[in-house]
Amino acid sequence: MSRFWSSIVHELTPYVPGEQPKITNLIKLNTNENPYGPSPKVLEALKAEAADTLRLYPDPNADRLKEAVAEYFGVIPAQVFVGNGSDEVLAHTFQALLNHSKPLLFPDISYSFYPVYCGLYGVVYETIPLTDTFEIRVDDYFLPNGGIIFSNPNAPTGQLLPLSAIEKLLRHTPESVVVVDEAYVDFGGKSAAPLVDKYPNLLVIQTLSKSRSLAGLRVGFAIGDVKLIEALERVKNSFNSYPLDRFAIAGAVAAFEDRAYFDQTCEAIIQTREKLSEDLQTLGFDVLPSAANFVFARHPKRDAAELSQQLRDVGIIVRHFRLPRIDQHLRITVGTDAECSSLVEQLGKILKPDS
Amino acid sequence: MSRFWSSIVHELTPYVPGEQPKITNLIKLNTNENPYGPSPKVLEALKAEAADTLRLYPDPNADRLKEAVAEYFGVIPAQVFVGNGSDEVLAHTFQALLNHSKPLLFPDISYSFYPVYCGLYGVVYETIPLTDTFEIRVDDYFLPNGGIIFSNPNAPTGQLLPLSAIEKLLRHTPESVVVVDEAYVDFGGKSAAPLVDKYPNLLVIQTLSKSRSLAGLRVGFAIGDVKLIEALERVKNSFNSYPLDRFAIAGAVAAFEDRAYFDQTCEAIIQTREKLSEDLQTLGFDVLPSAANFVFARHPKRDAAELSQQLRDVGIIVRHFRLPRIDQHLRITVGTDAECSSLVEQLGKILKPDS
Repeated sequence: MSRFWSSIVHELTPYVPGEQPKITNLIKLNTNENPYGPSPKVLEALKAEAADTLRLYPDPNADRLKEAVAEYFGVIPAQVFVGNGSDEVLAHTFQALLNHSKPLLFPDISYSFYPVYCGLYGVVYETIPLTDTFEIRVDDYFLPNGGIIFSNPNAPTGQLLPLSAIEKLLRHTPESVVVVDEAYVDFGGKSAAPLVDKYPNLLVIQTLSKSRSLAGLRVGFAIGDVKLIEALERVKNSFNSYPLDRFAIAGAVAAFEDRAYFDQTCEAIIQTREKLSEDLQTLGFDVLPSAANFVFARHPKRDAAELSQQLRDVGIIVRHFRLPRIDQHLRITVGTDAECSSLVEQLGKILKPDS
Repeated sequence: MSRFWSSIVHELTPYVPGEQPKITNLIKLNTNENPYGPSPKVLEALKAEAADTLRLYPDPNADRLKEAVAEYFGVIPAQVFVGNGSDEVLAHTFQALLNHSKPLLFPDISYSFYPVYCGLYGVVYETIPLTDTFEIRVDDYFLPNGGIIFSNPNAPTGQLLPLSAIEKLLRHTPESVVVVDEAYVDFGGKSAAPLVDKYPNLLVIQTLSKSRSLAGLRVGFAIGDVKLIEALERVKNSFNSYPLDRFAIAGAVAAFEDRAYFDQTCEAIIQTREKLSEDLQTLGFDVLPSAANFVFARHPKRDAAELSQQLRDVGIIVRHFRLPRIDQHLRITVGTDAECSSLVEQLGKILKPDS
């Protein structure tokens, strides 16, 4: 604490991201990164940016990238907002669109950054419990509200809400913004982006960190009605004119252009996930159905924190949340086939040390 | 306007950055970029980042970069904060350290983003007029205040406040944070960074966009007492865990390591600036003494907006601000010798078309 701090700072409980260990021989299944690197065409585009032109500011509007995203989703560039990772896009969204007198609603179990943003911007919020089977039931959100946000597939559960349920929610919530945070949608879900022309209160947020293998580059975007995007642009241009550097713009454009690589790596991850889910079930785990690049699993007879530590002892990191309702679960990122086989093998040894 | 916007959005007047034209054959002297590209060693380090590891998140704390900055300035890493351009560092500073019940003070003529940040975070402020000769007089800031911020050298005037005056201000302002925004300090000024151990209320902010030729990469940093830095970290970790991508971290570290290149390019710009100032005076301009990589000049007989347009007509862009007190000035970035010669030649033709 310090007398120099603005009053808001005293109240903040910052987000704690998953560990980024500095030792390299670990199997890292804790932060939902893609086991496959970016497309070779992306790497080529990035190398070309390491040039004299770095002395010049990037395009403050990242028009090339907005055009690439717009083309991919069949919208116009004015319906696209881009930012320095979807975390920045989310931050601006909380400030620009979700701060009203009525409470913002989100699931009790979801991306744990949501309540942190509320703290930063003084957004009043209320959490709505997931069902006993960790599902979002949209009827539970038919309450007076100043906005709704959830992840789809949800994190860290991996469970998918079908578009029909999202449309039902949108129809019942015409007066406030509904944000669908689709960080993991490319691993088996359907994006709500095609609905933005029908629902002016829908904002869809995605990231290039997961399905496009670019966590190290920091690019996220939002798609919505031009009026929603305008609010985000106003905040962005009051915060940082140039949030995306030249590498981020060039790499993200190239990632959208290489559709074949994207399809192929997403499909590989889906295949591995299905195998991993089966293997975990064979070991006695309860595994939630996942549409993401991770699975959320618990072992009925083993403490999750302990299992997490035992895995760490053999060089495998998974994510364990010390949070109500989910402190007996592990969130395990889908790695390569080899990484997942190692995980399953080690878990087998941990669970049955004598066999 | 839209009913979906948070109330703050309706009131915002976003910052308008200098034009980044998409045509390439212009002489671009409008956004204070460095005429020399980054160090070859920086480009090498950046090329190495275009790799498979981009699938992984960057270090959320950018420890390597904090260490490099700390070493350069003779402080400890916990006295260093890094962000996505100094604009992001400034934004977090306004929210974390400058939002108090008493008004924030800054010069009436300074970086025009300051009042924009105040709008974004609801910071009460008061502007203090520069003297008639466009200087900051620190005695004018001995008023009840919730913080003080100014650029040194000031922008867009280029004028430098000596460290003795800054110390006087710090001694008179022990109860609030004094932010010295040193975007241009490497072109002839002395950084206040060595004073941070003596004054726990001093925060110094710098950027790699100007003197280190990396405007396209987006890296800025702050140096101050660990308690000030802690406030910035709390806000940053409530906003975006990973503001610096892998390129930004690697390129910035390499830039701090190549001291020789930095010294040499800064010196070249200083030489060119002195020549440019003389040449402009020969053409009849009043030129303020500059310690930056730009000069601020007016011609007593010519309208600045018109001159700016006439230069643009011959492919040279300079910056003209339609603001009180300075609407008859031009801010001209120091380019290469050749670029400045072209500017002077063209201005000569504009001023004396018949000679």
